[in-house]
Amino acid sequence: MKSLQQLTRRKALTGLATPRLASQTFASQRLWQRNFAVTASAASQLAALDASKLSITKTTTPKELTPPKELVFGKTFTDHMLTVEWTATDGWHSPRIVPYQNLSLDPSTCVFHYAFECFEGMKAYKDKNGGTRLFRPNKNMERLNKSSARIALPTFDGEALIKLIGEFVKVDDRFIPDARGYSLYLRPTMIGTQKTLGVGPPGSALLFVIASPVGPYYPTGFKAISLEATDYAVRAWPGGVGDKKLGANYAPCILPQLEAASRGFQQNLWLFGEEEYVTEVGTMNLFIAIKNKETGKNELITAPLDGTILEGVTRDSVLTLARERLAPKGWEISERKIRMADVAQAAEEGRLIEVFGAGTAAIVSPVRSISYRGKLVDCGLKEHEEAGEIALQMKNWIEGIQYGDEPHSWSYEI
Amino acid sequence: MKSLQQLTRRKALTGLATPRLASQTFASQRLWQRNFAVTASAASQLAALDASKLSITKTTTPKELTPPKELVFGKTFTDHMLTVEWTATDGWHSPRIVPYQNLSLDPSTCVFHYAFECFEGMKAYKDKNGGTRLFRPNKNMERLNKSSARIALPTFDGEALIKLIGEFVKVDDRFIPDARGYSLYLRPTMIGTQKTLGVGPPGSALLFVIASPVGPYYPTGFKAISLEATDYAVRAWPGGVGDKKLGANYAPCILPQLEAASRGFQQNLWLFGEEEYVTEVGTMNLFIAIKNKETGKNELITAPLDGTILEGVTRDSVLTLARERLAPKGWEISERKIRMADVAQAAEEGRLIEVFGAGTAAIVSPVRSISYRGKLVDCGLKEHEEAGEIALQMKNWIEGIQYGDEPHSWSYEI
Repeated sequence: MKSLQQLTRRKALTGLATPRLASQTFASQRLWQRNFAVTASAASQLAALDASKLSITKTTTPKELTPPKELVFGKTFTDHMLTVEWTATDGWHSPRIVPYQNLSLDPSTCVFHYAFECFEGMKAYKDKNGGTRLFRPNKNMERLNKSSARIALPTFDGEALIKLIGEFVKVDDRFIPDARGYSLYLRPTMIGTQKTLGVGPPGSALLFVIASPVGPYYPTGFKAISLEATDYAVRAWPGGVGDKKLGANYAPCILPQLEAASRGFQQNLWLFGEEEYVTEVGTMNLFIAIKNKETGKNELITAPLDGTILEGVTRDSVLTLARERLAPKGWEISERKIRMADVAQAAEEGRLIEVFGAGTAAIVSPVRSISYRGKLVDCGLKEHEEAGEIALQMKNWIEGIQYGDEPHSWSYEI
Repeated sequence: MKSLQQLTRRKALTGLATPRLASQTFASQRLWQRNFAVTASAASQLAALDASKLSITKTTTPKELTPPKELVFGKTFTDHMLTVEWTATDGWHSPRIVPYQNLSLDPSTCVFHYAFECFEGMKAYKDKNGGTRLFRPNKNMERLNKSSARIALPTFDGEALIKLIGEFVKVDDRFIPDARGYSLYLRPTMIGTQKTLGVGPPGSALLFVIASPVGPYYPTGFKAISLEATDYAVRAWPGGVGDKKLGANYAPCILPQLEAASRGFQQNLWLFGEEEYVTEVGTMNLFIAIKNKETGKNELITAPLDGTILEGVTRDSVLTLARERLAPKGWEISERKIRMADVAQAAEEGRLIEVFGAGTAAIVSPVRSISYRGKLVDCGLKEHEEAGEIALQMKNWIEGIQYGDEPHSWSYEI
């Protein structure tokens, strides 16, 4: 796969090698070349990510398993980690599974200064036959490559990384709790490791995968959440990087999240522009089910992929299943912009059927209410109801595929 | 100083402790509390950053000095580094100057995943009496506190950090080249160090300062640069974080920079909105000197601080000096929006006097031309001229203050 990044790197270097403007024989260019240049010919000989070169070094001090009920998301990790180094001169080095350990990095490493970092979130599930499955891992590979290329980090063969992740999961298989709702959360991460304060494309990178056993998001059944619509801060914008899974998209979201929490809301809902379009929730995409005023039909709506929302794998799964299984029952399935004011109006007119978030952590997360312009928009749940029909249905469909109950091409057996 | 972050943290935790909505007794909230909570009473007893608690451990293997002419920006570092840990439970720990060394961090550390990182760029200069000086360090402290608070990292007493940086510079004094144009580049950096994949305010952080001796940006005199106006990607947005010095603002800028380089331009110029307002250059603010059509007066223009541009210290210095020293000569000094089309028109009508970037690295960086809509806008330099009068004047004024030739309150003697 030739990525935008590879193309750009090649083009940029060619450009640097054959300057068109006299003024280019110049300090900043020399600096770049000294720091970052690889020749175009070297670039074509770079090693691809090769799963057959994997080496495994097992830990001599295996950890005790945490009792499943005490698991906290992303706090405890397995015995090992997968690491692969990349350099601009050689390409991908040999992958290694090694004991889980600290990263030792020079304080000038570019990941600490310029946020050269992107990641994925995916899970491994135990099926009823004791087998282990991933869910649509190709989607995660695709997105990680897009994220990485957007910040001038290397791309890789997604199939190879899926194989390597499979080997890693096998080595730490004992950490996957064998119960419905439990899984092994996998965190593929790519960071720039060049040791320089010069701002430019990193000449080296590290791809690593760590794994954390996790319990069900809702251990005692669904609990609908309440959102606060945020109009004073903006998460993403057209021409920006809000559709990529970059570290850069996360730290700036904490204060609005804390603001919402301080007023008793579990998450904030990002509105965009003067029109106050509904985009996404803290760490999830959002789905809105309404009875459409014009068509009179039920409509399941989520924001379109216009660059301002994350291209969620769960979002895509919900859309696909909805088109396959809800559309025949008369539902319209729409990727379109919807204004928060229109959601509020639908609620007032009794046309708001249900609202739910969608993401890897919870699959779906039903929404009870949204605070908007000083009012609470009621999202259609009855008083003692914690989830709407669509959310419940989606959770069951997707979980059924993830745990292998329903044979499906989305389920990848390790 | 009570920061937005401290206020927010307090408020948020109070909010979490006394939920207003029934649905808040809830998984994500419990997760937060387990991961991140400090009690409000503990928060008020947090230790402030205290320079008097500094300990110094000197290296036993001092480095050889790099010959000044071989220095590359941000590639070689001094013998030591300054580090201060912070925890949400205790506040600031005792500052330490230790031998320059790798950071050893768990791979789940939040700086690698969610870009909890911000930094400053400042310099120490040798004056003619052998003394060492910083330039407006209080501005850097102010900005680092703003950046840090915006991503839920801790704030600190700026005076205390200036003192600590002074001590650090004294310890590594031999690395500061004693020649005009040379300096010691200082990189204060704050990173989140919490070991969890949960997305929330970090419960621990590390403030560190490293130092790199640097030579003049233009070793053989000014070289005017050429810019490419970028209209296909957007660096910052109102309500975003483009005015903070966050790592998050840097990695996404590399591809447009490479694109510009591939066509022979040293930097890209970020335009904003349908109006194509001129905002800033790759890593500098931008100044434009025109003869104003309406007033007939000379006008020095830079983009206003509307949240989409970095609040540059050099920008502020140029503005202040221009108001003091150019305004009396009839110049208008304006912080206002200007459209790229208006810059192009001024050039066509012979009213574009000069254009230059402003930043810590180069002080000023004269611009020869800007590629815009397929044409090269000529920025007013004569064929064999590498800098305009204002740029030259500003460089001399600011450098004179930085190196202590002109006594000035901006120069801080260590």
